[in-house]
Parts: sequence; C-alpha cells; structure tokens
Amino acid sequence: MRILEKINKANDIRNLRPSEYEALADQIREFLIEHVSRTGGHLASNLGVVELTMALHLFLDFPKDKLIWDVGHQCYVHKILTGRADGFEQLRKYGGMSGFPKRRESNTDLFDSGHSSNSISEACGLVRARELTGGKEKVVAVIGDGALTGGLAYEGLNNAGQLKSNLILVLNDNEMSIAKNVGGMASYLGKIRTSTRYEDLKDDVTSTLEKIPLVGEKLVRQIRRSKESLKQFMIPGMFFEQMNITYVGPIDGHNIGQMYEAFLAASRKNGPVLVHVITKKGKGYDCAEHDPGQFHGVDAFDVETGKSLSEKQGDTYTDVFAAAMNELAAKYRNLVAITAAMPDGTGLSEFKTKYPRRFFDVGIAEEHAVSFAAGLAAGGFHPVVAVYSTFLQRAYDQILHDVCLNRFPVTFAIDRAGIVGSDGETHQGIFDISYLTHIPGLLVMAPKNAAELKEMLEFCVTSAEPTAIRYPRGEAGDAFSQSQAPIRRGECEWLQREGEVLLLAAGSMVEVAGKVAQLLGADGICAAVANVRFLAPLDAKMLKEALSYKTVVTLEENVARGGFGEEVAAYLLGQGYRGRFLSVALPDQFIEHGSQAELRKVYGLDAESVAQRIRRL
Amino acid sequence: MRILEKINKANDIRNLRPSEYEALADQIREFLIEHVSRTGGHLASNLGVVELTMALHLFLDFPKDKLIWDVGHQCYVHKILTGRADGFEQLRKYGGMSGFPKRRESNTDLFDSGHSSNSISEACGLVRARELTGGKEKVVAVIGDGALTGGLAYEGLNNAGQLKSNLILVLNDNEMSIAKNVGGMASYLGKIRTSTRYEDLKDDVTSTLEKIPLVGEKLVRQIRRSKESLKQFMIPGMFFEQMNITYVGPIDGHNIGQMYEAFLAASRKNGPVLVHVITKKGKGYDCAEHDPGQFHGVDAFDVETGKSLSEKQGDTYTDVFAAAMNELAAKYRNLVAITAAMPDGTGLSEFKTKYPRRFFDVGIAEEHAVSFAAGLAAGGFHPVVAVYSTFLQRAYDQILHDVCLNRFPVTFAIDRAGIVGSDGETHQGIFDISYLTHIPGLLVMAPKNAAELKEMLEFCVTSAEPTAIRYPRGEAGDAFSQSQAPIRRGECEWLQREGEVLLLAAGSMVEVAGKVAQLLGADGICAAVANVRFLAPLDAKMLKEALSYKTVVTLEENVARGGFGEEVAAYLLGQGYRGRFLSVALPDQFIEHGSQAELRKVYGLDAESVAQRIRRL
Repeated sequence: MRILEKINKANDIRNLRPSEYEALADQIREFLIEHVSRTGGHLASNLGVVELTMALHLFLDFPKDKLIWDVGHQCYVHKILTGRADGFEQLRKYGGMSGFPKRRESNTDLFDSGHSSNSISEACGLVRARELTGGKEKVVAVIGDGALTGGLAYEGLNNAGQLKSNLILVLNDNEMSIAKNVGGMASYLGKIRTSTRYEDLKDDVTSTLEKIPLVGEKLVRQIRRSKESLKQFMIPGMFFEQMNITYVGPIDGHNIGQMYEAFLAASRKNGPVLVHVITKKGKGYDCAEHDPGQFHGVDAFDVETGKSLSEKQGDTYTDVFAAAMNELAAKYRNLVAITAAMPDGTGLSEFKTKYPRRFFDVGIAEEHAVSFAAGLAAGGFHPVVAVYSTFLQRAYDQILHDVCLNRFPVTFAIDRAGIVGSDGETHQGIFDISYLTHIPGLLVMAPKNAAELKEMLEFCVTSAEPTAIRYPRGEAGDAFSQSQAPIRRGECEWLQREGEVLLLAAGSMVEVAGKVAQLLGADGICAAVANVRFLAPLDAKMLKEALSYKTVVTLEENVARGGFGEEVAAYLLGQGYRGRFLSVALPDQFIEHGSQAELRKVYGLDAESVAQRIRRL
Repeated sequence: MRILEKINKANDIRNLRPSEYEALADQIREFLIEHVSRTGGHLASNLGVVELTMALHLFLDFPKDKLIWDVGHQCYVHKILTGRADGFEQLRKYGGMSGFPKRRESNTDLFDSGHSSNSISEACGLVRARELTGGKEKVVAVIGDGALTGGLAYEGLNNAGQLKSNLILVLNDNEMSIAKNVGGMASYLGKIRTSTRYEDLKDDVTSTLEKIPLVGEKLVRQIRRSKESLKQFMIPGMFFEQMNITYVGPIDGHNIGQMYEAFLAASRKNGPVLVHVITKKGKGYDCAEHDPGQFHGVDAFDVETGKSLSEKQGDTYTDVFAAAMNELAAKYRNLVAITAAMPDGTGLSEFKTKYPRRFFDVGIAEEHAVSFAAGLAAGGFHPVVAVYSTFLQRAYDQILHDVCLNRFPVTFAIDRAGIVGSDGETHQGIFDISYLTHIPGLLVMAPKNAAELKEMLEFCVTSAEPTAIRYPRGEAGDAFSQSQAPIRRGECEWLQREGEVLLLAAGSMVEVAGKVAQLLGADGICAAVANVRFLAPLDAKMLKEALSYKTVVTLEENVARGGFGEEVAAYLLGQGYRGRFLSVALPDQFIEHGSQAELRKVYGLDAESVAQRIRRL
C-alpha cells in the first residue's frame, strides 16, 4: 500500500513510522508533478517545502495548533496532508479546489490568502489572542525570504519582538521570491547561508540555544562588551536577535528530523523564535530545480521535457508592453522601469537585459516601488512601475501621497486588470478602477487592443502628469484595429456614432461592445460604440454627447461600486438625462477562481449576456 | 543685530561665523515658541531639530543638494533657514504657509509630504537618478525613530543597501513617534543609546569609520570569525550594517560641530551611510521637554504656563469614541483596541490604562495594525482599529485582503474623516468613502451626532462582519438628537419624510442637511431628510423610496468620485428616475489647509451654499 494512501485527514502523518517519511516525501513529489503537470498551478515552491510541511505536521496538532502560510501558493503539501489530495483533480478549476489556503475548505486553513508578507502580523494576533484566553496552542507562521523583503513583514517582526509567549516563525529560505531575491536582507541571508555549516547546529539545537547565555556571559567578560555582541559569534541571525527574536539556524529544510528538533527547541522559548530553514525550490524535479522561476506558476506541461502543453496564442498584453518598453527606452532616455520582484511576469526581463542601469527590481515591496518612483521622477526621470492590479493595492497611499499629490510624471503599467482566472479571489484585478479613479490628478487609461496599449504607453511616458494604464491578462488581439485615432489627453475614441443605444466601453470591454453591437444589429437595434480610453478624467465631450442617446450602457471589467459607470450615471442624472441606463460591471463581491472565459460568462460580461440585458431594457 | 535677521534665503547660514551658531539656535527656538504659541502647529519636534537642521544647512548647498524630511512636520527650522520666517505669521492658515514641506513654497522642498516612512525610498530614487545623470549633488534623508517602525522605511533600507554611490540617512532618534516609540527596533535603538558614549566617537568620526576594516581584519584572525561579526564590536549599529548600510553614531544631535563632521565623513563613503543622531524632543522649552507628546501638535497656548488658549468646547467625536470604548470594553470581554502610534490622538489613552492587556500600540505601522487585527479576530477577539482616515490609506490592501476577504469581525474607527483643517492636503480625510465602500463585505457607516457614534460602535463590536465608522474632527454635537432610531444593519434613518426635495446625508452632512431644510423651508420648499447611516451597503429600501421625490440631493464630506452620491445616481438612473439629482461633495482635487469652517464654505459644503444650489435646480 502506498504511504500516501494512509493520509486521509489532518494528523494522520503522526501515525506513520519515521522509516516511512522518506517514501512519503517521494510519493508527495510524484503526486504533485503528476497532477500539476495536468492542471497547471504552483509547482516549484511546493516541491521545495515537502519535508518542511511534513515536519510541521509532525510537530503540530490540528486544528488546535495554528499554522499560517505566507502568500499561500506553497500550501499544496499542506492540502495533501490534511486530506485534500482528491481536490487536485480540479485544482484551480471553476468550482474546484483553490490553489491557495481557503477557510471554507478546511479548519486547518486559518486565512484565505494570496498576497505576501502578512503572516507574521497575523501570527502576532493569534499569539495575543492566546495570551488573553490562556490557551496552550502553538502558533507557527511560514514566510519565504522573498516575502521578507516586504515592509509589512518587518512591521510584524518589530511587533513580534515584544511578545512574551511563544511564537515560531519559520523562514523558508530558497534564495528567491518568484525571481532571484534582492536587497540588503537577501545579501545578509546569503552571508548566513555561506558562513555557517548546518552541521554546527544539527546535533543538538536545543543545547545550542540554551548554552548561549552562559557562554555569552563568559566571553563578555573576556572582551569587555555586552552579551548582545557575543551572540553574533554564537549564532548567525544577529539581525533577528536585535529585534528581540531568538534565531535558530540555518537548518537543512530537507531534513525532517533536524527541523522537528528545531521546532521542538523553539517551542520551549517564551517569546518569538525564528527558525531559518534552507530549502531548494523545485527540489526533486530536475526541470524545476534548474529553472525554478519558470516553474513557479505553470500551465499544464510535459513531465519528461518540462515543456508547456498550452499552445502559444497571439501576443499577450504583457508581450506588447514588453516590446513597447524596449522601443520607448531607445527613444526616450529618461525612461526607467521598476518591478516589485516580477521581471518575468510583468514583461520587463528583456528591458532588464538591454537597459540594466535603467531597470530596478525592488523585491516584493510595492510601497517602496512607488515612493522610489517618486524619487526618480523628482530626479528628472520618467519611471514606469510595472505591476499587477491586485498587488498595486498595496501602494494605494503612495500613489496618492507620494506621486499624485506631487504631480510627478510616473506611469503605472497595471497588468492583470480585470478577471485573472485560476488564481482566484486574492488575485482578481477588479478593484483598480475604483481605487485609482478618485485620486486627484491621476490619468487612468485602458486600451482596447495591442496597438492601443503601445500608443497609450508612449502617451504616458511623454506626459508630465501621473498616468496609469490597466490592461488584462491574456491575448491582446486587434479589436477595432481599422479605426485607431491618435491618443489625445482625456478624449475617448468614437468607433461608431450612429445608434439609439450607446455603448461606453473600457479596455477589454470594447471588443465585447463590438460583439454586442453586432448581436443587437441582428435584432434591428443600432448601437453606437465609444472606446472610453480615459477612465479618469472622463471625456466631458463624450458625456455631453451621451445625453442624446436613448439608452446609455457602460461596460467595465471592475466591480460596479466606484467604477466609471457610476460616474457616468451621476453626470447623466445631474444633467436631467431622461433615457435608459445600464451599468455592466462585476457584482460587488470577491470573485472565485475559474477560467477567465467561464467567469466572464458567469458574471454576465460576455457579449451574449450583455446583449440580452440590453434587449430586456 | 539679531543673527536671525542675517538669514534671508537658503545658504545664508553658511556665511555666519561658528561663534554665532549658538545664538542663532537660541533665536530660532525663541522664534518658534513665540510664533507657534500664537498660531498653533508642530512644536516639540521642531525644537528638537534646531541644531540638526543648522548642521545640515551648513553641510549642504541648496538647491543643488537634496534634503528630504520624512513626514515633514519637523521642517519649520528648515523653512526659517530658507528665508520663510515671515510665513510663520500665517502658518497653517487658509492661504498662508503650510506646516509641511511644499514644493510651491521653495525649491528646497523636494516633496510635498505629511505621511511617514517614505523618505528613504524617495532618497533612493534621487540617488539612482544622480547615478544615471552623473551628477555630484548630495542626497540626505532625515527620518525619525518613530517613522522607522513603518515597513516602508525598511523596504527603503533594504533597497538602499544595494546602492554603490553615496546616500546619507540621518536617523533623528528622540525615542518617540508622537507617543513613546514601540517594538523591537525601539528596544534595539535603546540599547545603542545606553551602551555607547557619544564621546567614544566624537573626537574623530572619520577615523573611526576608516579604521574599521583594518582593525577588523586583525581581530578577525584572532577570534576566527568574519569581519562582519567584528563590526559589532567597533560600532553599535550592526542592524544597519547587516543591511549593507554603514552606521555612524550615536551622535549628539544638539552638537552642530560633531554632526557636521559626521556628515562630512559619511559623504566620503561610496554607498549608504546612516548617521544616528540623538535629539531631545521639545529641547529648550521646559513645558515641551516635559511633555513632548502634548506639544507634538498644539493649538495656540500660553508660553509661561504651556496651557492651551483654545477654549474646550463640547465633546469631540474622539472624546465620545474614547468614552464609548471604555464602556463597551466592560460589557464585551472580547473587545480589544489597536492604535498605530496614536493613543492620544485616537482617544485610546484611557482604554490603555484601564485595559492594558487588551490595548495594542503597534507603532507607525498601519498595515501591521490591520493584519494583526485579522489575527486577533481569527483568535476569537473583536479588534477595534482606531486610526485617522488619511493614515488608513496605508492599509487599503490589508483591509481588503486580510480582513474583508476573510469576513473577520474587525471594526475600523476612522477619526478625522472629511476636512481636517490646518494640516492640509496630506491629512484631509476626504477619500475614505471612495476607497472603502467598494470593498466587498465591509459595512461602512457614518454617525450624525455623538449619541449615534456610540450606538454605531456598539452595533459594530457586536457584529460578525467587518465594519467601519467614519467620523469627523471636532465637536460631536447633538444634531437631530430628538429622533434617534436604533441602528439596524443596512438601514437609513428617516428624519423627515415629507417634501419634494429629498436630502440624503451622510455623517457630518446630516446636521448641514437639517439647516438646508430650514433654509429651503423659509422659501416654501419642503425638504425631506434621511440620515444615510450605511454608506455600504446603501439601504435598498431608502433608494427605492427616493424614486418618489422630485429632487434627490446627496451630501457627503468626501470627494465626488467614488462617493456614495454616484452610487445613488447609478441606482436612480437605472430605475428610470425622472427627477432632478444633485451630488454635494468635495471637488476631485487635493484640498489645501485652512480652518474646517473656511474650507467647507470655500468648497460649498455649508448649508447656505447647498441651499443655494438646490434653489437653482
């Protein structure tokens, strides 16, 4: 019988014999590779934490004890060990199991998550709650070295340093975020990794921990300095010790026994302990070990070759953005580019190679990315901050306060705006129109096709104002490419003026509007179509002209509240408009995972659904 | 002739004789106390940085060199030294000089600012820009130890660690944010302050810096460890050194010569240097030295006694919140409170004393405050995060991702919502309706008076959903206290149903709506008034009833875009409403400083202006 079949619910792993651990790890890897190669998903990070997750599950008693996964894309092994192996058949499919922790799936998933660096703070909350209730449960947060470049993690560490009861922070150090990790902290961890052998500590972590004060005291006297200084000699994690966090490590993250011992030792301390665990991203699958960035998140692939099975369609918006940036950089010497740990995802890899001095990867640090851009702009440059819609949420205040209040010419290139698909609730880019268009002075745009993204980008990087372009995940296409009016500040593009119904569409919805017009045309209803282009400020002339149509329909891939449809409505009503109005947008709720096409249909953003709603008016 | 009179523009201080410095410092302090005691403003922090600012102005050449003040409330001395002493007559008054750095006032103010912890990131941007242009200017950022608890500062440090050309970060360490500083970093800085004498370093900072590698190498061999470990013995700022930032200090922040030497030494290093300067908040004015928290921001006061000259009016919303929290804490044992470094400002000081274990000051770390609240909620508690509207902007993503996606019962008590007055553009709380009401699952409320705030708070802390209450700065009052319907989830309160005009008013605007109704009544126009109470979700029944009025007017102290007026308009128009509609809100721009009453009048939020607009319809 396969060992994996003995795992049917949380804690089952604790009934295994130690001699079975290695086989279980092998079977889990095999299972992951087999399933993810078919469904797609996060692979390399999960292969990296097989033994770590097993050690944690041996150490903890669920659901009493509390385990938090930072970000959460590395929770697959945890899902297997809590009896959710069957769910992998429908991983990330509409209606199927999520690729991230979900409270509705299991009481061992404590937080629905997907964004990074918040686990230490959440763990502090659980520890304070335990102190107040007098509970005895263990609290453990697992955070990657990538997530540690986020300021929120530091705020968490700073506050964890005050705790008087136990908290275990596991630093899962694989030297990467999605890309290679950056910054002073990465370099510091690098020094720890290279300067200390695991063997120095593995024999008895407990005694190492407990010896320190004694040995420390003795050496202190010898060299006339404080015991704080001494710890530096005993243990390499001085950075954390200085924050009042006991450091244990580095530990081999593929040695279950060693990790288990370290967790046990750490749990005896009254206060926060950081256990530094070194893992290899992609471990056990050659292709992923060799190129962990490529295998961070994957579509279905061939296990033998590692090659993707999804056929390359036309250029995506990311491809178009990437090519445009390279061209524009040659033309405009003051153009610089910034990414928060995602040179590949945002399409800046080639720019990085071509213009290394004008490219900045700041780590998982969206707030810094934006404030840093403000500084570059103050120094005479035009920064393009390339970022996913959902992650830019982190920098709302910096966009408002650092960039827009100062009217700096910074461009936000916002990829994955709208429905993103299988990553689900935590990653949908469905709020950016709402959180950006009310910020004074920010021009917010959305292109209808590939060519327009390129032109908008050139418009932005030559603008003296703060600008933002939102564009969706997936193929860019050439909708309405026959009519491509030049981009003019604050002006919409009229694609078809005649009609009784006016479709005011933004970005991805312009193509839909075109199809809606065709469908309505077949019913003898003539529809005009305007490509809004500027979501902020809205084209005043366009709004005025809209008054003359019998029906006005706004179309946007964003939640309705705070969307541009509401602003159009407020204008029309204020002007005494007497026609019909329909706002096509997403409902005001979080949108689960599924394919983009499925979700658009479910939520009525496809042409047929929209046409049907208009016919009913 | 007074020395101060020799300072008429930037760099004038460089023409003084060193023997004049002390007298200048005295005269600046006298000037500050005299002026701020009349106008109100930020005092203690400015008294603390008199010598620091002088030393920086002696060291730098404006406008070539770049100086950034983190937050910026401590820029008064900088304003004096750049020829803006005259501006203090109208400090923080409408049309007068701002209390924060403003680019329109001087080319020595590089960033309009008011929020904390972003200066290191902005400085990194200026350094990268200098590297690209090949410039020679110096770049200096001054950041307080309070601001260093913000994660953005850490993201900045992490990236600064990669710089290969000079950047000087001045850590202005006064052991405080507005309140006493907290966390592991504060405790670390405390250790540095107490363990090392200034004299150890003051003789020759340069040689100290330059000696390190040599001495280090020697000692390394003796004790078989890396040179990194050694630095701990030579210089106390190991934390920063580990981030690849050279540490110099601690330096006496009231000794101009010593600081000047340190800056000079620091500027010779190719890379980032942190100069740790110890200052005393309130220095030179007994009352402020004794109680720097009280003298952080002040109204006009009597210089002799330090007593405020502004008469205490009725209870403010903050007072009401404070009293309600104390009562509710006695009633609900699962209630806990969180502040980000503002126990006084948010009204939690008494709660802190009464319920110390249930009170958490997390430092200037709004993101952590919210994620930490999510953790406490997961642990069974009901956290109230008390915070100013403008600062909650920092935690937009945590509210959405950590709290609302997880449907945790966390309450955001949002003080200073709407126009705040003399702090101006960076502090107005005029965006929260826009950035909160589109977040799925968050109940957003606004009370019309003191009693309603209290009832709403009880509603919130007994709710199982995420909730937010926004309330303004200033007196709470008892508008419409005769009718106080119980709070019911998602229901508005009808104050007057009869009328042709319906006034839908939120929070502070309910009282205004009452006055508007009176004014209109005098003209024979009968106005109905509804207290919206719930900005999200809007009361569906209220919206339906609104359809029957000839005119609907929405009133909110928030920018128009993304405000609740737009949502009302979208509903009405979608339902085929044929009446008139008016949205009363702030224009979509940043609002400058001035008194609340002045600004409300300027932007048409006073009763007379609103009535006038309605009459014109």
